[in-house]
Amino acid sequence: MSASGRLAIVGLGPGDAGYLCERARPALAAAEVVIAYAPYCDRVSALLPGIPVEPWPIGAEAERAADAARRARNGASVAVVSSGDAGVYGMAGLCLEALYELGWDGRTAPELEIVPGVTAALAAAARLGAPLAVDFACISLSDLLVPWELIERRLTAVGAGDLAVALYNPRSQARPHALGRALDVLRAHRDPATPAAMVHDACRPGERVDIGELGSLVAEEASMDTLVLIGCSSTRRLGRHLVTLRPRRRRDVPS
Amino acid sequence: MSASGRLAIVGLGPGDAGYLCERARPALAAAEVVIAYAPYCDRVSALLPGIPVEPWPIGAEAERAADAARRARNGASVAVVSSGDAGVYGMAGLCLEALYELGWDGRTAPELEIVPGVTAALAAAARLGAPLAVDFACISLSDLLVPWELIERRLTAVGAGDLAVALYNPRSQARPHALGRALDVLRAHRDPATPAAMVHDACRPGERVDIGELGSLVAEEASMDTLVLIGCSSTRRLGRHLVTLRPRRRRDVPS
Repeated sequence: MSASGRLAIVGLGPGDAGYLCERARPALAAAEVVIAYAPYCDRVSALLPGIPVEPWPIGAEAERAADAARRARNGASVAVVSSGDAGVYGMAGLCLEALYELGWDGRTAPELEIVPGVTAALAAAARLGAPLAVDFACISLSDLLVPWELIERRLTAVGAGDLAVALYNPRSQARPHALGRALDVLRAHRDPATPAAMVHDACRPGERVDIGELGSLVAEEASMDTLVLIGCSSTRRLGRHLVTLRPRRRRDVPS
Repeated sequence: MSASGRLAIVGLGPGDAGYLCERARPALAAAEVVIAYAPYCDRVSALLPGIPVEPWPIGAEAERAADAARRARNGASVAVVSSGDAGVYGMAGLCLEALYELGWDGRTAPELEIVPGVTAALAAAARLGAPLAVDFACISLSDLLVPWELIERRLTAVGAGDLAVALYNPRSQARPHALGRALDVLRAHRDPATPAAMVHDACRPGERVDIGELGSLVAEEASMDTLVLIGCSSTRRLGRHLVTLRPRRRRDVPS
């Protein structure tokens, strides 16, 4: 146990270790223990065989963050992991809240390191081509985090603003209708022929890419492991890929 | 020169090699030549000393993509790099357009690989804490890519939808007023006390982080190397960090 304590918050990327940041392994290796949502423990062990990993149940995110913060504040070197980027629907915010609740000053012990990662939207986009090449939004459809009224307000804004959008947590057994409702909102604003896609298990074993159109996307085909991507008015399907064009091409700009 | 040709489109991350995906180095190393915007050549050479790198001028993105696509289609193994993620305001879209314009079928030669990267918004967010922890948008203020009317429409949508937002390309000598105009739009929708920040040269030498509030952000302090981040109604300043809270905390959810 170091005298000063250390908390590393590390994004594991989408799955394939090739999309892990180079800094992630050493940041994890410096920890005495890695605190992880149980299904991610195997990923950590595969990266760093033998490293102590503590599995935590789903639904205990705030408790996991509080425990990590407390142990780091008491002098331990602890790492907390999230899939994708820990700063996007991940553990970084909860860990920071927990640290400050313990009276941390943001400067001294424990030392804090946040290692960013490739979030699911970027991983899925790379598989699809470049659907997020210009402006875009990321919205989670889980009403465990955000009340549905606000999710719908955000989807309406994305529709009105002609933004491409990546939909996280589109559907689960407890929320079978979330994606259908979200698609209804977007369809009210956008041409049904707008290119859209589902990427299931992006950059993980069993990855599957389905490209289609907003109007004919079947919500029931999504699961919690799906990233749904809806293009904007300048998104085009080119063969097996989706690309969002620059509405004003550089070649059109007078020099 | 391989018989089949290969095009790798690789995001270099924000700058610090620690935030490069592990797959990026081998994907670049497999190329006979790396095609890069001139200021990124040194970054490629530092990663892979001795690799041939071709510097290209700014403003020639479409030509750079067309040249890379043509050479890969003719059997060469070529890599094209972008800073951050090549799929976000980067070269991936232009390269795909160029490949399909040459009659590529999306399956056979040249082989295509897109390696995602940590885009500037995620890099800056990791430095700030977790300001993009819930829903967010990325918008570029460069009207070389998107007409200003559409940029303003998107900013208005982000304001109306209470989305945290990362502003790319906030200000340049040619566009000294873009950020000021963008802030005016957001200020019309959002409390002036909303936490906001500028991260200059995120994850690069000379990095500087300024945390403040939407109402008092000084547009003139931004440059092309600044990522401007404006929180939403659930973003809080905690000491030296910004965190966007989950509007509905899991602990509030009946189990």
